[in-house]
Amino acid sequence: MHDTAPQAEVTAWLAAFAAALVRRDVPATLALFAEDCYWRDFLAFTWNIKTLEGKAAIADMLDATLTHTAPEAFAAGEMKREAGVTEAWFSFRTTSGHGEGILRLEGSKCRTILTTLQELEGHPEGAGFHRPMGVRHGARRDRETWTEARWRETASLGTETQPYCVIIGGGQGGIMLGARLRALGVPTIIVEKNPRPGDSWRNRYRSLVLHDPVWYDHLPYMPFPANWPVFTPKDKMGDWLEAYVSLMELTYWGSTEAQSARFDPEAGRWTLELIREGKPITLRPAQLVFATGAYGPPRTIALPGSETFGGEILHSSAYRDGAAYADKKVVVIGAASSGHDVAVDLWEAGADVTMVQRSPITVVRSDTLMELAFDTYSEGAAARGIDVDKADMLTMATPFALQPIGAKALYDRIREKDADFYAALEATGFLIDFGPDDTGLLMKAYRTGSGYYVDVGGSQLIIDGEIKVKSGVEIERLVPGAIRFTDGSEVAADVIIQCTGFQSLHEVIARIVSREVGDRIGTCWGLGSGTRNDPGPWHGELRNMYKPVAHPNLFIQGGNLALSRYFSKFVALQIKARMEGIPTPVYGAPS
Amino acid sequence: MHDTAPQAEVTAWLAAFAAALVRRDVPATLALFAEDCYWRDFLAFTWNIKTLEGKAAIADMLDATLTHTAPEAFAAGEMKREAGVTEAWFSFRTTSGHGEGILRLEGSKCRTILTTLQELEGHPEGAGFHRPMGVRHGARRDRETWTEARWRETASLGTETQPYCVIIGGGQGGIMLGARLRALGVPTIIVEKNPRPGDSWRNRYRSLVLHDPVWYDHLPYMPFPANWPVFTPKDKMGDWLEAYVSLMELTYWGSTEAQSARFDPEAGRWTLELIREGKPITLRPAQLVFATGAYGPPRTIALPGSETFGGEILHSSAYRDGAAYADKKVVVIGAASSGHDVAVDLWEAGADVTMVQRSPITVVRSDTLMELAFDTYSEGAAARGIDVDKADMLTMATPFALQPIGAKALYDRIREKDADFYAALEATGFLIDFGPDDTGLLMKAYRTGSGYYVDVGGSQLIIDGEIKVKSGVEIERLVPGAIRFTDGSEVAADVIIQCTGFQSLHEVIARIVSREVGDRIGTCWGLGSGTRNDPGPWHGELRNMYKPVAHPNLFIQGGNLALSRYFSKFVALQIKARMEGIPTPVYGAPS
Repeated sequence: MHDTAPQAEVTAWLAAFAAALVRRDVPATLALFAEDCYWRDFLAFTWNIKTLEGKAAIADMLDATLTHTAPEAFAAGEMKREAGVTEAWFSFRTTSGHGEGILRLEGSKCRTILTTLQELEGHPEGAGFHRPMGVRHGARRDRETWTEARWRETASLGTETQPYCVIIGGGQGGIMLGARLRALGVPTIIVEKNPRPGDSWRNRYRSLVLHDPVWYDHLPYMPFPANWPVFTPKDKMGDWLEAYVSLMELTYWGSTEAQSARFDPEAGRWTLELIREGKPITLRPAQLVFATGAYGPPRTIALPGSETFGGEILHSSAYRDGAAYADKKVVVIGAASSGHDVAVDLWEAGADVTMVQRSPITVVRSDTLMELAFDTYSEGAAARGIDVDKADMLTMATPFALQPIGAKALYDRIREKDADFYAALEATGFLIDFGPDDTGLLMKAYRTGSGYYVDVGGSQLIIDGEIKVKSGVEIERLVPGAIRFTDGSEVAADVIIQCTGFQSLHEVIARIVSREVGDRIGTCWGLGSGTRNDPGPWHGELRNMYKPVAHPNLFIQGGNLALSRYFSKFVALQIKARMEGIPTPVYGAPS
Repeated sequence: MHDTAPQAEVTAWLAAFAAALVRRDVPATLALFAEDCYWRDFLAFTWNIKTLEGKAAIADMLDATLTHTAPEAFAAGEMKREAGVTEAWFSFRTTSGHGEGILRLEGSKCRTILTTLQELEGHPEGAGFHRPMGVRHGARRDRETWTEARWRETASLGTETQPYCVIIGGGQGGIMLGARLRALGVPTIIVEKNPRPGDSWRNRYRSLVLHDPVWYDHLPYMPFPANWPVFTPKDKMGDWLEAYVSLMELTYWGSTEAQSARFDPEAGRWTLELIREGKPITLRPAQLVFATGAYGPPRTIALPGSETFGGEILHSSAYRDGAAYADKKVVVIGAASSGHDVAVDLWEAGADVTMVQRSPITVVRSDTLMELAFDTYSEGAAARGIDVDKADMLTMATPFALQPIGAKALYDRIREKDADFYAALEATGFLIDFGPDDTGLLMKAYRTGSGYYVDVGGSQLIIDGEIKVKSGVEIERLVPGAIRFTDGSEVAADVIIQCTGFQSLHEVIARIVSREVGDRIGTCWGLGSGTRNDPGPWHGELRNMYKPVAHPNLFIQGGNLALSRYFSKFVALQIKARMEGIPTPVYGAPS
């Protein structure tokens, strides 16, 4: 801030950029960019979640969008220069509303730019300077109190009046989106199969604690308290979500399952059949959001001979508590997060645990991750004024295509720092990888949402031989009381727990809407990196998430707490714009 | 910050101040102060809530405390110069722990200084950089999950184990103190006569909405969300408090009434007899806190002839909803906040309302107050980095003795701005005052906690004649179906509602501990200003609030949300220090 050089450089660049855009002069705009350039846009220009990579892609986008977006009023905000890169925040306006962005200059050229729509013209979200008053001053004989208004709304929405939006899935993703939509005044019902908000956390295994720290996990509008633990225990997370739903005044239908959904293109409305507390009910929302978790239904692997096995076989999603398995021989199939967590829980309960590892896993110690990877989301960052909203923008300012560079550097440091740990773990036969390009956990999460473990204690049990590992060999079949492997070896088992992950979310859509629609939308999540389980072509953003898909009036919301928090804003803006009849021409829409 | 003059001036002053204190050189310290100087100290030097006024008082305090507090490590923080006054934040250390303060220099001399103890050495509050981890990493067969630990604690505290502290009263004051004590690791039970946290708000009249804006009302650790309304409706406030108690993991016994409390000086323990959900139970805490509201039991006035009246007579604390009084003739006795709110609620329900005004009232329009009086607590202030904790410190930096100056200036502006409003209101016969020294609402609140109304609509009803006013004449007696006044006039009434305020909180102590102890402690609240209902001598701080009183191991916590928030920190630190056996020599303790 006190260095005048970046100020002048940024002001000059932004003025030239603004002038070129106002003139609709695409070549002049492109001249301001480096050859290897990236423009990441969230709604502001594209009404899409889109990264344009290289000048040709940017030119195409600008040709298609400049006239109707009419960007203007660019103004620089905070800036800094570090290691030859000048980073500057800026604000701007389009015909749709107010935008914010971050640009990064290398020399005098722009390497990356992020543009985001933050507020729809004339429809600010009811928060901060636009928070509701809570009371109309003055006395009125027709006064309806807050409580009475809430009762009326709760009683009528979904029966006398129809919601504009229904969110299927009342976990964190659905709840955060529900809060955003409410702040935008979009009548919404969240439907959830569990009775109470937070049950999706409460129902998980006993010892579960969030693997990400509190600073990364905040929900919109109401951050976790200053005295909240760094790692939230699962029941406490459940209680937080339940309180959040109540305090945010969301219309939340627990014990409700979606049966089927059919879209009427003429009416622009869905017919959504539900079973609510045992009784059928039909809703007719304009917009339908699937927020049933980042993943779809449980994925199980075929185990030939299971009819002869004689013991219990279950998927990790059905596992609750190790107590039932004390003194049992339990084989856990799968060595990623849920495999480790279930194995530890079983070991703590006194079970004899063997983990069957089918493919290499990225392991990283939680303490190391906290020390090296969460500097943007930390108490220290917050004390320096980088609150969670700023941290999100800074994170998003780097396009997915460039993230492997930083990720690889991070994992180079991690492997060096924890070399002894990794050596000891590998000595047990446990197979470690850091992804095909050594970029570690986060890139795996974006690409496949699987194949990693943040070590909060499981690895030491493996190193100590307390949890045995069977790896490098395939399962042949089950035999009575044991698993037989292709090398002829056997592992005795009373119980088998499949920690084998989940299917893609489009399987949920296939079940509720139709197979045809599910397949048309296709895989959800993943970047198209061409690495294992993430086939190309390259998308540059998460497939089908948070943006228009190959079906009208349908959105997919999901991801961890951080992604749900950040992108719920953009899903909500897309839905609000459609409700208000604001034009939302989508650039790069799926066919 | 960019003006180097205050930097040099502050650094020089603080260095000289620190050097003089380290040398225990009281005359040299005094030489740094202006003649008309004030030192406000919260625990850091005095283990008391104390303002020293003038050099002699400061000298006496320093003589008594410098040796054992050993202040050092003074360091300047943010500073600014405005209108000839240099204001600077600073930090320091004493033998007890970490302190923060604000000093204001006029010329090179200190006019006012605030010193506060913020953290006990070795006992940081579990928040921010010291927040709990939530999980010990590693696997353990004796693992107790968060839920299990909470259940165990809830089941045992008060039966198998004794709390160190019991708070009588589970409204906002008790709840906030409970949260502070929990963050400091002080085993505490809050007892409350209502079943659920928040009921003390829910039980009030239907149309009640907080008169102070959200930015002024935050609770510790967990501020109101960004989308929370400016003025919180009473039931929503109830829900917030209930969620807060749960999320803060407070041990809260609803449906519990304190019967009697007896202190054993030998054991240093109270014997506290309670009725919990109909059953007697005894607790033996070391510290007892009365947090039964800023006021004691309802105050009623004698109404001669009430046996002949024939209608209903009730106190405002028993009033809920105007619906029962539609088409009734209701007389509201009292013209302050509750008098107005009840009158409006009755009018909205269709009652025929007359307000009997017994003494002049300070009225100020809510909109005006928001515009002119809440700049430190506002969305704008928050956006400028003045969060609620900073705003509190800035507010407290001005000693009570100097507050009338700013208050009078504010009310001079208010009377000018709203001259037409006040003229119209006075034309109805309504008697307005702004306090004996024209200092308005806030000083009245500190002095007596009564005699004012923040107008949210009641005044217009009076101006319009919708609510009739009877003022300037005394009630003589009740007669059948009417009130007769000393001038011979009568006002017909089916119902009389006494909005006549509450007794001093020491009446609650008298009832539960003993009359002798209640009287020894004496009046709670008030400054000793010598103005109406606030007899001298001058105290300089609120009488008996938040600090040692004339009985050991007893504290009084109360006030509006803002005062409860701010001072709960200091009550909690006093209790924590006593629990840990940290010496707390009290300067200026009541005898």
